[in-house]
Amino acid sequence: MQVFDLRSDTITKPTLDMRKAMAAAEVGDDVYREDPTTTKLEKLAAELTGKERALFVSSGCMGNLISLYIQAGRGKEVLCASNSHIIQHEIGSIAAIAGSLHITINAPRGVLNATDFKSLVKQGSYDMATTALIEVENTIGGYCYPLENLEMIHDFASTHNLKVHMDGARIFNAQTATGIPVKTYAKYADSITFCLSKGLGCPVGSMLCGDKDFISQALTVRKLLGGGMRQTGILAAAGLYALEHHVDRLKDDHAHAKAIADTLAKTGWADVDMPGVQTNILFFTVHSLTAQEVVKQLARIGILANTEGDTVRLVTNLDISDDDTQSICSLLASFELEGLA
Amino acid sequence: MQVFDLRSDTITKPTLDMRKAMAAAEVGDDVYREDPTTTKLEKLAAELTGKERALFVSSGCMGNLISLYIQAGRGKEVLCASNSHIIQHEIGSIAAIAGSLHITINAPRGVLNATDFKSLVKQGSYDMATTALIEVENTIGGYCYPLENLEMIHDFASTHNLKVHMDGARIFNAQTATGIPVKTYAKYADSITFCLSKGLGCPVGSMLCGDKDFISQALTVRKLLGGGMRQTGILAAAGLYALEHHVDRLKDDHAHAKAIADTLAKTGWADVDMPGVQTNILFFTVHSLTAQEVVKQLARIGILANTEGDTVRLVTNLDISDDDTQSICSLLASFELEGLA
Amino acid sequence: MQVFDLRSDTITKPTLDMRKAMAAAEVGDDVYREDPTTTKLEKLAAELTGKERALFVSSGCMGNLISLYIQAGRGKEVLCASNSHIIQHEIGSIAAIAGSLHITINAPRGVLNATDFKSLVKQGSYDMATTALIEVENTIGGYCYPLENLEMIHDFASTHNLKVHMDGARIFNAQTATGIPVKTYAKYADSITFCLSKGLGCPVGSMLCGDKDFISQALTVRKLLGGGMRQTGILAAAGLYALEHHVDRLKDDHAHAKAIADTLAKTGWADVDMPGVQTNILFFTVHSLTAQEVVKQLARIGILANTEGDTVRLVTNLDISDDDTQSICSLLASFELEGLA
Amino acid sequence: MQVFDLRSDTITKPTLDMRKAMAAAEVGDDVYREDPTTTKLEKLAAELTGKERALFVSSGCMGNLISLYIQAGRGKEVLCASNSHIIQHEIGSIAAIAGSLHITINAPRGVLNATDFKSLVKQGSYDMATTALIEVENTIGGYCYPLENLEMIHDFASTHNLKVHMDGARIFNAQTATGIPVKTYAKYADSITFCLSKGLGCPVGSMLCGDKDFISQALTVRKLLGGGMRQTGILAAAGLYALEHHVDRLKDDHAHAKAIADTLAKTGWADVDMPGVQTNILFFTVHSLTAQEVVKQLARIGILANTEGDTVRLVTNLDISDDDTQSICSLLASFELEGLA
Repeated sequence: MQVFDLRSDTITKPTLDMRKAMAAAEVGDDVYREDPTTTKLEKLAAELTGKERALFVSSGCMGNLISLYIQAGRGKEVLCASNSHIIQHEIGSIAAIAGSLHITINAPRGVLNATDFKSLVKQGSYDMATTALIEVENTIGGYCYPLENLEMIHDFASTHNLKVHMDGARIFNAQTATGIPVKTYAKYADSITFCLSKGLGCPVGSMLCGDKDFISQALTVRKLLGGGMRQTGILAAAGLYALEHHVDRLKDDHAHAKAIADTLAKTGWADVDMPGVQTNILFFTVHSLTAQEVVKQLARIGILANTEGDTVRLVTNLDISDDDTQSICSLLASFELEGLA
Repeated sequence: MQVFDLRSDTITKPTLDMRKAMAAAEVGDDVYREDPTTTKLEKLAAELTGKERALFVSSGCMGNLISLYIQAGRGKEVLCASNSHIIQHEIGSIAAIAGSLHITINAPRGVLNATDFKSLVKQGSYDMATTALIEVENTIGGYCYPLENLEMIHDFASTHNLKVHMDGARIFNAQTATGIPVKTYAKYADSITFCLSKGLGCPVGSMLCGDKDFISQALTVRKLLGGGMRQTGILAAAGLYALEHHVDRLKDDHAHAKAIADTLAKTGWADVDMPGVQTNILFFTVHSLTAQEVVKQLARIGILANTEGDTVRLVTNLDISDDDTQSICSLLASFELEGLA
Repeated sequence: MQVFDLRSDTITKPTLDMRKAMAAAEVGDDVYREDPTTTKLEKLAAELTGKERALFVSSGCMGNLISLYIQAGRGKEVLCASNSHIIQHEIGSIAAIAGSLHITINAPRGVLNATDFKSLVKQGSYDMATTALIEVENTIGGYCYPLENLEMIHDFASTHNLKVHMDGARIFNAQTATGIPVKTYAKYADSITFCLSKGLGCPVGSMLCGDKDFISQALTVRKLLGGGMRQTGILAAAGLYALEHHVDRLKDDHAHAKAIADTLAKTGWADVDMPGVQTNILFFTVHSLTAQEVVKQLARIGILANTEGDTVRLVTNLDISDDDTQSICSLLASFELEGLA
Repeated sequence: MQVFDLRSDTITKPTLDMRKAMAAAEVGDDVYREDPTTTKLEKLAAELTGKERALFVSSGCMGNLISLYIQAGRGKEVLCASNSHIIQHEIGSIAAIAGSLHITINAPRGVLNATDFKSLVKQGSYDMATTALIEVENTIGGYCYPLENLEMIHDFASTHNLKVHMDGARIFNAQTATGIPVKTYAKYADSITFCLSKGLGCPVGSMLCGDKDFISQALTVRKLLGGGMRQTGILAAAGLYALEHHVDRLKDDHAHAKAIADTLAKTGWADVDMPGVQTNILFFTVHSLTAQEVVKQLARIGILANTEGDTVRLVTNLDISDDDTQSICSLLASFELEGLA
């Protein structure tokens, strides 16, 4: 049985050409800041996001954590969506390591409005943590942040002397879906992370971008976390390769997700969040079955999925081709779930 | 102009007799655990809450923090109401010092149901903080926790191997209002704090109660926070006095709050949360005026109030007598707010 | 059998007059910064140390911790003596709560020289914590810091952009012994703590002094630690009383310590650190017996002592009168230790 | 001018064959624990150290930090040498992230004796951090720990209920120099790290080894630090290659270091610590010149060195061949330092 892994876009394996790029990488000791390929990648990342500097970090979690550590820190408050990755999938590092208090907002799809923050900003109170940072995630659950929300959030932040961090793990998916350049999205954030290891298909790493002083502090915090690595050029070469060759093809992942969503919607048993399918992620539920039960049954026909709360999540990625998508759609169209009420 | 301070019940001043009790207190070095009066108070607190041991701490904030530090700790998750004191009024110490991640629930009045937790418990996930603790606050906003909620929360916690901490800052108000003994409430929690310095009228201190092993750890964490104090018998004497003389009179505070609420409700301009007036706290809003504006105008006639989010909060206390309450009611009944729409 | 408690000067009990002062104290809610007696004490402490502001804290541990938290903080380095209180007797809060790395210096009696720091200051290294603070303790083990050491340390700190914190728990003992005013000592430190509950005989509390901005931050950190207390005027009144009535009498404690040390030195079995007896603390060892064994035997004749590492420590205090000292000396002079080699 | 980089063994670049191994690596998502090459490496590391389990981490700093976090943690005490890497070169993470208090011992070469710990273990004291862990570093400054020291330290630890962590960044150098298997060294520690990126010549990574329960916790803490990475098989393949091909050749590095040390010793101007040259590291000083000045002058003839405190440090490594060593020796033999007194 062929297996189609739609659990996440983190599972992609480096292509042959990416492997060649890695094998040929010029390297140096990056802890001494002497790795030329890493330096090149960091310059490119800074350029693409329109920031002064960038830093290669071993994961998106680490990138977000460093930003929280520096821009919020101990005893400071972070405003974010209740379904944001930093709260739900980073194992509590915002509290345990950054020491920051989060105040979450239950927003539709996790897309925040500046108006959400109005009565939440605290400054100078004797018994309240001072608000320091707004965190947004773009895409969030595969959904692209409307630019006007970011504009207004940025304005609000400026007015209230807050910083904005954008978890842009899948920001290139947003760019692909909306045509809005990464740089434009990034303009509304003081710091931004993006992942090389998700849609872009690299084995390891994320980029953390911001101004010169911020990245200088980030270098220290990365070391504090044990995140300094030596000849990172090997990994950075994959990043450079991906930024050159794997950005354009994200539209294929999006088309695949759309095709799968359409197929599911027609099955009758799947309740698909169609307006949410903007990039490479789709969510659906099955009336009368738990998400876990659906995932188990899909696995039997070779489709690997994940749960996200009470929903089933499918994520298209570099390792899912056009043909794979057709096969997946065929499988789903003819699939008979057991236990439907 | 006479001033009536209804901002909080923390503002009460020790009575003459309480002062006498303090002045006469037998003392020793409590850091060496040799203060007889403190020991006596700790024994009494343990008895009243039905716990093995109790510890005198300098504030309710410290008591809660110690419990979070021990029973949740770094990288562990705490489930609580979004309006709970530990999130809104303890300056972020849950994250900055305890290192715990909170997941908040928007519950009416902040009273939680066991069903709220169902999909929130996480254990053994590779990217999620493990849930460790449920925190409840009783009273919360002056409202008493229904016992059945506590029972079910306790059952849920036991089933899922979680601990329960009760912030019982005003637990004696709950006992007074409902007739349910403190000990009964405390039965549903692994640890409980109650304040000596709120309704009970002491100058300083809270009691943290729990089992022997927990209190032994609490002693260490209290020292870690710099909370060890020497001849605490002075303060403990006030606590002993209050537990003997100031519990019965809490019903007066409740009657005063009810009288003020009734008066306000009749004014026409105040929208009072009448069902919420169970103890010594009442909330109201004024259509077309901000809470801050109302507080400012009330101050002009000698009534000091506080805001809590968008509402005005009044708290009756030991320093507000029957006569004071009559005066306050008269003032409010005839008060003409400016700027009413 | 009469018992003479020389374990520490923390064990003193408030005198009748101090109790009267406490009982009569004018109070308010200090968390709201409205306690007039606390305010008065804070003003006096600021004056005495020549600093802009002062803050009442529940213990010397808390005062030191707050200073470390603010002036060093996470990932910053603190230079101090290896026998300093913050390392040996504050339960690791410098690391656990402040998050600061200490680098200790083995100095005779713990008195540091500016030359000790020469090769220890680190700034801007990629793998080393940046040095932020020098901590000195005065008196340390009852020994007074030579002023020239403090001057040179202060100069060194200024040159290297470091702050200086002085743990002046017994700074009034230093003033008494040397005639150098507290204010002069404090001039060489950015922040200083002094204890009300040691030689000064108060039941609870320490003062943390520094500039306006520092004390403003200290207020926040005190709250973060759960150290905010309500009607602290009760405790502050003891502080004011002590600063007026108990400073002059410290010379008696010093004379008592000297008398006891002289007696011990003549016994033949005690090896007393005579040059170290400058204030109210004295150390001795007994050849062939452990410090713990000596403490045990002394307890049998009613003299309570403590160990400090391998030595026996005696501390004179407010509760040891001239007559008591004579009795202690008689007991020691005729005491026959068991087990002497 | 040819440049010989002796600053560290971290600067080595992957060989052609190692690159081929990386390029061909079978991979999977290691955050999901599905990377076969990483799994293989972890099994091998566990075998080599005789531990139940091993975990790939991005750096030795991270490996040590995770061990400190788990085996000591907040408010617990760690005994170690004052020149240990965790204190001097890990940017204070022991305090800032692990929250542990270190007590350092000034031992010759940093080699500890069980007798050093005798009066340092603290357990159950009300004002002292409880001792939890002894940390040893092997090699330390290139010097191999005598096995009997490790045995006695291990016995001492067992007796006092302490854990032992070994920073074995260069443990394969120790094995090479002494013939004592890594497994034998590791027997005396509860947890051990070793570096793939130093003498073994890999671009990235370290192995953290210990028992099953410890490694299970380590996985969580690694994630907490942001240290989870995806297709780590690329990096693990280098590790597997190195363990097969680069262990035997460490003796060459040692011979090179010895040759350079001998040459230096004969120059007349260098004071070499000859007994310390056991592996691939050598230290020397130059009378009348600072270490920094010497490093600067050596750079002019193409020899890159580092300072370690007041000494000059040279480290031979995979990128220094026999021929290179001859060239380096010739350069040094004929070198005329400027400014010699």
